[in-house]
Amino acid sequence: MNRRQFGGVVASALAVPMIASGNEPQQPELKFQPMHSGRRPEIGMLLYPGLTLLDLLGPQTALSTSCNVHLIWKTRDFIESDTGIGLRPTGTFADCPKDLDAIFVGGGPGQFGIMNDPETVRFLADRGSRAKYVTSVCSGSLLLGAAGLMRGYKATSHWACRDLLPLFGATPVDARVVVDRNRISGGGVTAGLDFGLVLLAKLLGEDIAKVTQLAMEYDPEPPFHAGTPKEAGPEVVKKVREWMGPLDGVMRQVCEQSAKSMPR
Amino acid sequence: MNRRQFGGVVASALAVPMIASGNEPQQPELKFQPMHSGRRPEIGMLLYPGLTLLDLLGPQTALSTSCNVHLIWKTRDFIESDTGIGLRPTGTFADCPKDLDAIFVGGGPGQFGIMNDPETVRFLADRGSRAKYVTSVCSGSLLLGAAGLMRGYKATSHWACRDLLPLFGATPVDARVVVDRNRISGGGVTAGLDFGLVLLAKLLGEDIAKVTQLAMEYDPEPPFHAGTPKEAGPEVVKKVREWMGPLDGVMRQVCEQSAKSMPR
Repeated sequence: MNRRQFGGVVASALAVPMIASGNEPQQPELKFQPMHSGRRPEIGMLLYPGLTLLDLLGPQTALSTSCNVHLIWKTRDFIESDTGIGLRPTGTFADCPKDLDAIFVGGGPGQFGIMNDPETVRFLADRGSRAKYVTSVCSGSLLLGAAGLMRGYKATSHWACRDLLPLFGATPVDARVVVDRNRISGGGVTAGLDFGLVLLAKLLGEDIAKVTQLAMEYDPEPPFHAGTPKEAGPEVVKKVREWMGPLDGVMRQVCEQSAKSMPR
Repeated sequence: MNRRQFGGVVASALAVPMIASGNEPQQPELKFQPMHSGRRPEIGMLLYPGLTLLDLLGPQTALSTSCNVHLIWKTRDFIESDTGIGLRPTGTFADCPKDLDAIFVGGGPGQFGIMNDPETVRFLADRGSRAKYVTSVCSGSLLLGAAGLMRGYKATSHWACRDLLPLFGATPVDARVVVDRNRISGGGVTAGLDFGLVLLAKLLGEDIAKVTQLAMEYDPEPPFHAGTPKEAGPEVVKKVREWMGPLDGVMRQVCEQSAKSMPR
C-alpha cells in the first residue's frame, strides 16, 4: 500500500493527527463512532472450544455498537469454533466483571464437552445469579440449564434439542425468541440476529435497536423455505440428523448427566 | 469437569476409541459429519484487520458444512475484527489454493485501509481471474471493484455505499443478492446469510442448501421493520450516518483513489 498517500486521504477526512514513524505516517484507526453517550451496558459472552460462532456473532455485532462486550473463557489462549474459526477471548472467568447487564451463552457441539465441567458451571451460575438478563441462543439454553439457571422458566433452543430443556426444569416453547421475566432465549444459530436486537432494545431502547438493525441491513430474504422442520419437511430433517451423527444421542446423555448435578 | 465420566458417555455414544493420557481418558472431538461424500469445493475468504466479521461468518457457516473454507490474509498473525473479535487466518496469500471455486470478500471499515494496497489488490485480481465464482457481501464489492473484478457487472453493496460501485465500472442494483454471470454479491452485513445459501446452492445444489438452512434454523423474524433505509425512515438513516462518522466521507475518497489504479 502507498501508506503515505492513503494516510493523507484519511488524515484529511478524519482530521486525525498523523503519528510519524520514521518518514512513514501511521494509518489512523478506521472505526465507527459510539452510538450513544450514556453508560455502555456490560455484556459477558461465553467462548469455548467448538462453539457455533454465528450463535454468538449475531448478538455480538448488534450489541457492540453500544455495549461493552466481553468474550470470556477460562484463559486467553485461542480457541477454535466448530466451523474452524480461530478466536481469542478478551477476558477470563477470573477477570470478567461480577455484575453484568447480560450474561450470554451460545450453543455448539463443544458445549457437550463442558456441561459437566464444574468450573464452567460455577462461573455461569455465579454471573447468572447476579446479571440483569440471563440469555442464550441455540442449544446454549441447555448450558444455562446445566448451571441451574432455567428452572421454572420458559425457553427455546435449537429445534433438534428443544425437547431436552425439561431435564433442567424449563418449559420448551416453539418460538424464535422467548422472553420470560429476565430470561431471554433464541432459537437455533441464526435466531441470534433476532435475539440480539430484542436484547439491545431491552437494554437501551427501541431507537438504538432500530439504528443498529439498519446499520446491519437486517431485512432478510432466505432463498428457500427450509428454516424450520415443518417448512423443510421430513427428508431434510432426516439429513440434518444424519449430519449431526452421534452428537444427536450424545446431547441427551450429557444433559441427563449434568441435570443430576445441577446447582440448587 | 469429570472427564472420565463425560469421556465414557461420549466414547460409548460415538464409539470412538479413547486415547489414554496417564489415567485420564481424552475427550473425543464432538463434530458434525460431512454433509456429502463428493468433492468439497475450495473457498477462499479474505480476512483483514477491521473487517465486519458477520459479513463473512454467515456464508462461512453455511459453506463450511460441505466445502473447504480458507481464511486468508498476508500472514497467520491474529487480526481484530471491527467489533473486537480476535481471529486467526488459516492461510496466506502465498499458500492459498490457486484455483478456487469461489473467492469471497466481506466488507468493514478496515477495507478502506487496504483498497490501495498493491499486494491485496494483486492477490484478489489473480484469484478472482481464475475462480469459478467471484463473490462479496456488504462493501466487499467495492474491494472486488478495486481489484478490477466488477467492471461491466451488476452488483450490490451495503446501502450506505452502493452508489460508489460505478467508480469501478459496476452497475448498482438495489437487491438482497445480485447474480450476474459468475459474480454474486450480497447487500449489507446480514445479507451474508441469504448470499451464503445462494452460493451453496450454485456450488452443490439446492438440496444441500436446504439441509444447511434447516441446520442453521434460518427462519428469520426481525423484531422491528428497520432493515432498509425506506423501512427505517430518514431519522434512523441520519443516525446510522452519524454512527459512521468520518468514515462516510473516507469511503468515497478511498474508492476514487483506488479506481485510478484499478488493474485493467
